[in-house]
Amino acid sequence: MQPVKFYFDFLNQSSRALYILMEAAKIPFEAIQISILKGEHLTGEFRDKVSHFKRLPVIKDENFLLAESVAIFRHLNREKIVPEHWYPRRNFGRSRIDEFLEWQQRNMGLACSRYFEQKWLVPFLEKTSPDEKNVNALTESLNKSLKDFENLFLNKNRFVIGDNISYADLMAICEIDQPKYIGFDPFNHHPKLGKWYENVKEELGPYYKQVADEFDNKLKTAEKKIPEVMYLQQ
Amino acid sequence: MQPVKFYFDFLNQSSRALYILMEAAKIPFEAIQISILKGEHLTGEFRDKVSHFKRLPVIKDENFLLAESVAIFRHLNREKIVPEHWYPRRNFGRSRIDEFLEWQQRNMGLACSRYFEQKWLVPFLEKTSPDEKNVNALTESLNKSLKDFENLFLNKNRFVIGDNISYADLMAICEIDQPKYIGFDPFNHHPKLGKWYENVKEELGPYYKQVADEFDNKLKTAEKKIPEVMYLQQ
Repeated sequence: MQPVKFYFDFLNQSSRALYILMEAAKIPFEAIQISILKGEHLTGEFRDKVSHFKRLPVIKDENFLLAESVAIFRHLNREKIVPEHWYPRRNFGRSRIDEFLEWQQRNMGLACSRYFEQKWLVPFLEKTSPDEKNVNALTESLNKSLKDFENLFLNKNRFVIGDNISYADLMAICEIDQPKYIGFDPFNHHPKLGKWYENVKEELGPYYKQVADEFDNKLKTAEKKIPEVMYLQQ
Repeated sequence: MQPVKFYFDFLNQSSRALYILMEAAKIPFEAIQISILKGEHLTGEFRDKVSHFKRLPVIKDENFLLAESVAIFRHLNREKIVPEHWYPRRNFGRSRIDEFLEWQQRNMGLACSRYFEQKWLVPFLEKTSPDEKNVNALTESLNKSLKDFENLFLNKNRFVIGDNISYADLMAICEIDQPKYIGFDPFNHHPKLGKWYENVKEELGPYYKQVADEFDNKLKTAEKKIPEVMYLQQ
């Protein structure tokens, strides 16, 4: 069996989540970095031969190309060997994780991505300052969705669906890192969130650390190239 | 085995898709209508005992409550008997359907819902006229996403993933009906879409017709109650 080809960028939250999953589950894969900052996901060979969706991540499993990160997650669960705790069958665990993933795409994930785009990505690409009013509105909606995440999904358990880590936790930490790594404090007013975040980080250990460091490094390298946007992290 | 309790409103696209699926697959269910127009999904027993998500549809399977429509679709596939063609295992059919469902929630589904909200729902609830500028922008984004749907998912096959109808087609037709049933023409400039739409309608037969009629009826009844918004469908 050939390793899965994995097209990704560490700047993208779903790319990081799937990268960590494949490392932790020991699924053989070939890592192919595509630079969002250089627009490589929009043009050339990637657009023509890999994905018309013009989005990351994408996998190529033998000759089967697949976009959309949750679809990829489920594909890996069906076609490869993924330890049960990531997507457990018992106690309707899969249904609970599906419910979270769908909720989060429309809520917390959207809020995190929009904040990252408007505060960092768009100003970086267009060499402008972030629109203050826009960022303030996005900060408010981000705080609201973090509060919803606490209320709807974090409870007395260590992780979202119980005592074991699942893909819900992995996807959530990667989403929250988008605003966190550009200077937003997600734990202010959200004590339960802070405790859960530490649990997830501890449980993922070096798999998380390596990828989070790569993300941080990409942000800092990009900022150094265009010194006038350095203020972004102040 | 008890029938699944199904909380829904025919005004909501995912409620219609799941209702049609359960009828067609002959899954025993108890239909519990919750009125969005009366705000029943936001208050009282529904909010406190059924779903903190304050959204429809929701199911209760024995004692297990589940929100989010794609999660519900997958739950039914795991726990009940659903004919294979809706979510086929072979040729990576499930991965392809997952990819479509995830794409459409962020693209065509979002465009259809927003158009419906701004053109009909918000004006109805607030007894105001639709904001023309807003509706024009949403019309443009709706046309763009219908074009993307044609280009990315419709090809020489009869249905999205081949010659058999799947949940991708069912979800898509219900989404497109949101703007269509309040007067938008989705087929203008989209000939492939028109042909696919007819195929889906024909294949679903009376299951679709009954539910689409109920939807139409709800729209018309609501408009009659508040005559000043009758212009909406002109």
